[in-house]
Amino acid sequence: MGEINVSNILPDEKVKSLVQSWLAEDTPNFDYGGLVVGHKMETAELLIKSPGIVAGVPFFDAVFQQLGCEVKWLCKEGSKFEPCTRERIATVTGPCKNILLGERIALNCISRASGVATIARRYLEIVGKTDWKGKIAGTRKTTPGFRLVEKYSLLVAGADTHRYNLSSMVMLKDNHIWSSGSITKAVEATKSVSGFSTKIEVECQSLEEGLEAARAGADVVMFDNFKPENLMSAAKTLKSQFPYVVVEASGGIDEENISSYCVQDVDVISTSKLIQGYPAVDFSLKIIKKNS
Amino acid sequence: MGEINVSNILPDEKVKSLVQSWLAEDTPNFDYGGLVVGHKMETAELLIKSPGIVAGVPFFDAVFQQLGCEVKWLCKEGSKFEPCTRERIATVTGPCKNILLGERIALNCISRASGVATIARRYLEIVGKTDWKGKIAGTRKTTPGFRLVEKYSLLVAGADTHRYNLSSMVMLKDNHIWSSGSITKAVEATKSVSGFSTKIEVECQSLEEGLEAARAGADVVMFDNFKPENLMSAAKTLKSQFPYVVVEASGGIDEENISSYCVQDVDVISTSKLIQGYPAVDFSLKIIKKNS
Amino acid sequence: MGEINVSNILPDEKVKSLVQSWLAEDTPNFDYGGLVVGHKMETAELLIKSPGIVAGVPFFDAVFQQLGCEVKWLCKEGSKFEPCTRERIATVTGPCKNILLGERIALNCISRASGVATIARRYLEIVGKTDWKGKIAGTRKTTPGFRLVEKYSLLVAGADTHRYNLSSMVMLKDNHIWSSGSITKAVEATKSVSGFSTKIEVECQSLEEGLEAARAGADVVMFDNFKPENLMSAAKTLKSQFPYVVVEASGGIDEENISSYCVQDVDVISTSKLIQGYPAVDFSLKIIKKNS
Amino acid sequence: MGEINVSNILPDEKVKSLVQSWLAEDTPNFDYGGLVVGHKMETAELLIKSPGIVAGVPFFDAVFQQLGCEVKWLCKEGSKFEPCTRERIATVTGPCKNILLGERIALNCISRASGVATIARRYLEIVGKTDWKGKIAGTRKTTPGFRLVEKYSLLVAGADTHRYNLSSMVMLKDNHIWSSGSITKAVEATKSVSGFSTKIEVECQSLEEGLEAARAGADVVMFDNFKPENLMSAAKTLKSQFPYVVVEASGGIDEENISSYCVQDVDVISTSKLIQGYPAVDFSLKIIKKNS
Amino acid sequence: MGEINVSNILPDEKVKSLVQSWLAEDTPNFDYGGLVVGHKMETAELLIKSPGIVAGVPFFDAVFQQLGCEVKWLCKEGSKFEPCTRERIATVTGPCKNILLGERIALNCISRASGVATIARRYLEIVGKTDWKGKIAGTRKTTPGFRLVEKYSLLVAGADTHRYNLSSMVMLKDNHIWSSGSITKAVEATKSVSGFSTKIEVECQSLEEGLEAARAGADVVMFDNFKPENLMSAAKTLKSQFPYVVVEASGGIDEENISSYCVQDVDVISTSKLIQGYPAVDFSLKIIKKNS
Amino acid sequence: MGEINVSNILPDEKVKSLVQSWLAEDTPNFDYGGLVVGHKMETAELLIKSPGIVAGVPFFDAVFQQLGCEVKWLCKEGSKFEPCTRERIATVTGPCKNILLGERIALNCISRASGVATIARRYLEIVGKTDWKGKIAGTRKTTPGFRLVEKYSLLVAGADTHRYNLSSMVMLKDNHIWSSGSITKAVEATKSVSGFSTKIEVECQSLEEGLEAARAGADVVMFDNFKPENLMSAAKTLKSQFPYVVVEASGGIDEENISSYCVQDVDVISTSKLIQGYPAVDFSLKIIKKNS
Repeated sequence: MGEINVSNILPDEKVKSLVQSWLAEDTPNFDYGGLVVGHKMETAELLIKSPGIVAGVPFFDAVFQQLGCEVKWLCKEGSKFEPCTRERIATVTGPCKNILLGERIALNCISRASGVATIARRYLEIVGKTDWKGKIAGTRKTTPGFRLVEKYSLLVAGADTHRYNLSSMVMLKDNHIWSSGSITKAVEATKSVSGFSTKIEVECQSLEEGLEAARAGADVVMFDNFKPENLMSAAKTLKSQFPYVVVEASGGIDEENISSYCVQDVDVISTSKLIQGYPAVDFSLKIIKKNS
Repeated sequence: MGEINVSNILPDEKVKSLVQSWLAEDTPNFDYGGLVVGHKMETAELLIKSPGIVAGVPFFDAVFQQLGCEVKWLCKEGSKFEPCTRERIATVTGPCKNILLGERIALNCISRASGVATIARRYLEIVGKTDWKGKIAGTRKTTPGFRLVEKYSLLVAGADTHRYNLSSMVMLKDNHIWSSGSITKAVEATKSVSGFSTKIEVECQSLEEGLEAARAGADVVMFDNFKPENLMSAAKTLKSQFPYVVVEASGGIDEENISSYCVQDVDVISTSKLIQGYPAVDFSLKIIKKNS
Repeated sequence: MGEINVSNILPDEKVKSLVQSWLAEDTPNFDYGGLVVGHKMETAELLIKSPGIVAGVPFFDAVFQQLGCEVKWLCKEGSKFEPCTRERIATVTGPCKNILLGERIALNCISRASGVATIARRYLEIVGKTDWKGKIAGTRKTTPGFRLVEKYSLLVAGADTHRYNLSSMVMLKDNHIWSSGSITKAVEATKSVSGFSTKIEVECQSLEEGLEAARAGADVVMFDNFKPENLMSAAKTLKSQFPYVVVEASGGIDEENISSYCVQDVDVISTSKLIQGYPAVDFSLKIIKKNS
Repeated sequence: MGEINVSNILPDEKVKSLVQSWLAEDTPNFDYGGLVVGHKMETAELLIKSPGIVAGVPFFDAVFQQLGCEVKWLCKEGSKFEPCTRERIATVTGPCKNILLGERIALNCISRASGVATIARRYLEIVGKTDWKGKIAGTRKTTPGFRLVEKYSLLVAGADTHRYNLSSMVMLKDNHIWSSGSITKAVEATKSVSGFSTKIEVECQSLEEGLEAARAGADVVMFDNFKPENLMSAAKTLKSQFPYVVVEASGGIDEENISSYCVQDVDVISTSKLIQGYPAVDFSLKIIKKNS
Repeated sequence: MGEINVSNILPDEKVKSLVQSWLAEDTPNFDYGGLVVGHKMETAELLIKSPGIVAGVPFFDAVFQQLGCEVKWLCKEGSKFEPCTRERIATVTGPCKNILLGERIALNCISRASGVATIARRYLEIVGKTDWKGKIAGTRKTTPGFRLVEKYSLLVAGADTHRYNLSSMVMLKDNHIWSSGSITKAVEATKSVSGFSTKIEVECQSLEEGLEAARAGADVVMFDNFKPENLMSAAKTLKSQFPYVVVEASGGIDEENISSYCVQDVDVISTSKLIQGYPAVDFSLKIIKKNS
Repeated sequence: MGEINVSNILPDEKVKSLVQSWLAEDTPNFDYGGLVVGHKMETAELLIKSPGIVAGVPFFDAVFQQLGCEVKWLCKEGSKFEPCTRERIATVTGPCKNILLGERIALNCISRASGVATIARRYLEIVGKTDWKGKIAGTRKTTPGFRLVEKYSLLVAGADTHRYNLSSMVMLKDNHIWSSGSITKAVEATKSVSGFSTKIEVECQSLEEGLEAARAGADVVMFDNFKPENLMSAAKTLKSQFPYVVVEASGGIDEENISSYCVQDVDVISTSKLIQGYPAVDFSLKIIKKNS
């Protein structure tokens, strides 16, 4: 087995259907600009203009493939750039009108994908300075309709996607528990249908809740909004009794304080900072003018 | 005529079809959590937890309407909040499983919509301190598939949406001009099809280009990446000759420097800061526990 | 810049998705005829059988491209034919069953596209005999679902498409004005959201209304159902005060009387005759029988 | 059984999905006009302004039902009108913005549906003056995407829809026959899959072909482009041998000459004049102004 | 004309859109397995592991074509296999991740298609031992969404598909008749809209009903749940009076008793056993390991 | 918490969109039968006619809800029936044409859903006679496009759905392992992206493979095609070392032999018999004739 290529996790058909919806959004009827430039073949260069991790290559490719253009990359998905001014990282060749049709969509996509990867990598670097071995995960607080790009970008950075959606790992939160009567009852109800193939996570407000969840058969216990010192002690107690249960810390964790959550017996730290309110990386696409 | 309600600009059918795609993304098959809580009627409260402008009400409503829940608002679209801790701004009543099915999607939507409105309002407040009377506009750098929400949120804040997509106002940029041979030729080509109902904007690198564009019949001249002092002089010259041409300033404009672009004869200042890399406003939805 | 090719205004993806819906309409399940002829390669010739302007080439191409067939044209989009009996204008090569699958759809499309172009050209020729320099425009009275073809065909003929849909140029009609209280209020309400990139047109019943609209900031004033003599005087007065406002004449205009509306100071004459109730041009597609 | 209501032939879901695609075409994003008028309840009246048969009621209803408006009809589907100037035939009540959102789509639909019904009824009236008892049928030359409306309108008028699409009755034309080697072989190949539930029609250029088709088991023989005198004799000979075979006449039949094709032994006369190049009936929708 | 290839009855576009929906069902977001195997080129072999008729080739092909893989068949659609253990019948070559993405869908499809064809062929073989010359037909009791595959598989086996759906041949059952008042009234109502191109079948409980139906103009009379001896006599009487009416027997017919229904004057025997509750044929797809 | 209602696991929107696709399949254009019966209100009774477990209630409901009909159930989802002849289990009230539009689709759905539930329950009853406490699971060998119904029906019966699709629990089979070089490498590659929320299962051909998989971190070890005696010993050894690893037995398991696989240390037995080649339960829907 060679090197893992994370883009192989994307099913082409799904990516293609997303791209089609994006193209429809941006050009519901006439493409006036396309008329002006016509369909003669041109090559454009993709420039990165602000520092960051490049992510979203398969989406960028799919936009232009859908438009009959060919993309050649000069870097790999996940590469880090700190451009002085601007640096060429790919070229796009195809009919001029189609390069311009795809330009803004493709840039809008990778500037966000790269934004997610960049901030996720920053968190990983911060955590990497501790001797903690757990995982940093995003949450389900993604942009509606754009989750595939955002979750994928976490993978590019090396972060954990957390559960993908409501049909993935079950998360039992306060509403579920209160509605069922107890953590134990909620977990049992879930187990009756989720079967052996789907994990169950319980959001817990105290060590006691965590222990009840683990006893009931939860696969993951999430300690919600714990202070670091309380987290350390709770995780330790839980793990000593339930070594196979995954412990997640979540709630109010950011760049400033994340290191203090990197405590033994915590397996996962999750934060929505990775996929909400993230900055964009700046790219542009410029057609290369030929000498006449 | 009574007060203008900006949400009337949204066609219900379009909003509904967006919401359907978001629901499909988040629950492609089983809703395990829904089984646990069942469909007994509950009421949840929507809380705002960080300061900002509330935006996205019609989308929030549409998510829950699609799920057979009813939303009651305690505030208006566009209201400004600076909550101490958290403040209730709406309630959602419906089958418990459906409240939870819609919860994350609805929150993900309004936290972003409100993020856009909040930052746009901040720019408007900065500019409001000058005596400039022009408009602040977003750009087309929106999240793929999510443009309707982001552009709408600009309107909630009182900002200008700029053109919606490639089928709206024509923008002739360097690629179009270079490909056509000259600004004049590009404008003429466009006019041959865009007709009398669609405006034409030309991105110009110099006053000379601006004058050529105006002479050729451009409706809007955009001075790209001009320094404020050059902008002022160019705009003045252009306006003196072409009083009906709209002058837009764009490129590298942010919160820090926008005031310096608020010069006479400039009608519009545009920046992608409003719809890219914007922070999220924090909301949560909690089921109100009844006393037993 | 070479010659303008109007078909470059069509985004391929949009055309393709229309074609897919047409194919689904015509063959929801079995293609009995396809079984009979099989998939051996054949070539068919496209014949024009009644006089007219050929339009719809990109749609015809897209139907057959979708079906794995290749089209070669012997004429250009927009060419005028006055065939004695029938004249070959293109050939289609591909699997026999697929030629026949696409035949009726492709013909139904171009016979209508050419019908629109033919009647639009006729109006242009009538008007061309006067010394008027304005534009002839269609309206929004298109066949539901078929607007892209019909509006595009206007462009092929050299006519103006008028606004494409409700998200394009705003048109304020009697209902909007009455509902707002006055033309001035309606225009102001619109301007608060339509921004600098979208034009505003007001339908006016009198010169006074036209003047109010122009004062309020309308970009286009439409004089509705004016008699030619009244139109001339109203347009003159309006233009003298608002030289940058576009003047449109509309209402009850047809082939017989259009020349009388070609008066100075009128920029656009619009009529739904171009895209409603238009005749079809007659085409057929015949497989070329090889000598055995 | 009471009176037959032809609109019961339309499946609501199919009509609804057509309407949704039409609404999306006309308002891909913002509805500027909707903002101006708001959602206060209004009632509009539907006026017929040119003579014709009213058709398309269920589509008109579906447009407004989709938009939360209620339609009340003052006439029945298929009624004939010869208005002096204009005559009220229905009212639409609902939020003002939604009446205007649906207005143009609904009018575009019924003006065409009524156009088809009007011309079809005219053909039926012409034929009704003879003592011929056969049927007048449209063809498959319908507007792509709009077939349901056009075929349905034939039924409203009392005409025959002919086969709906390629998955309905099989029609073997010259290309199929030539490709199979003979009429007999083409019919046999078809019968091997079309089974007992689908009819087979053969397009014949001569009586001999008609007889071969009937012998091979065709259900319908179409005599293509026969002169009336030849048609009469061919139909008679065919019927005398194959009394259960349906005889259709087609090709070059119009209002002028149709009476001469109304000969004994011909069961069906088909012409594309009914669904191609038909004129539109003129309607308008006006909001009823309340007295203040 | 060469040999008939039944797969030509399938319109490619329709098959492709089915395949796209199947792929979306099986991989709504990430393809974890795809990441593991990557996109290096591999070849897999398709093995048949239980006896049966191979059917569904065009669907199998379409799955892999959609995924950029190439399929080579070593047998024809409709071939009969009685494998000792397993027998290679095709190979699939393409990127490894895409072979595995399509594997389960493609197998699920052909195992069912082949199941339908196998059982249909078995019925045909049983009937083939009698001297009856009629047709065996499936019914409309197909799996929702999967009808095209199931009906097509009947054709592969040589059985009759019966009517495809509610828009095909009209079937008047007890509910229709009772609702209309009589068989005669129901047939007349139908004829007023179904026209000359669509057949009408009436489900009859007695010979009297059958005769009434035939007199009213039914094309097909179905004797429902008749005992074989009654069927024989009813069919004979009906045919003697209405030789062109097709007689169908249906209701409670299975492998055990079908031979007793193979009586003279019965043209069609239909049973839902062919497309409901049918067994699956066992296939597997194995990547061929290359020697290192 | 009250009784668990398994139908709450279905998201309404997803069910609705399936139902819409089924309705479109069955009535692509005209509903001839609907015309005959009209839209007067009727009530029909749903009868069960062969023994089995009733399943699919929410899909049946959704079909008729979409058509404006109301369903009342006289039994619960999952009830067991052994009708002598036929037994009424629900009524459907609505416009007659809509009852008939939905009839076949609704019956086709529940006859299959009930077939799956019936056979799954039979397996559970067989296993229930042993003292084994594990789970019986279906596989991914479902009908393309119909998985939601089939997997859901397993839950109704009390069986385990196994993983839903390729985006759920990862299953590493021979192809993945061979492609990666070893079980260890394949599991590691998976873990790098599947994160903490998704389980990993490895298909193993021997105890040694099982041990390697468990060591590498697999959550589930599947012993493929083991004889019962080998299975017992392998499971025991594995569990003694990896008590938290789930052990699944699969391959060639059917009604006859399943009891012999119910051995200690096996947690799950899976078989495709539950969702492939299952028999249908017989239902019919009859309109209740009112006395006149």
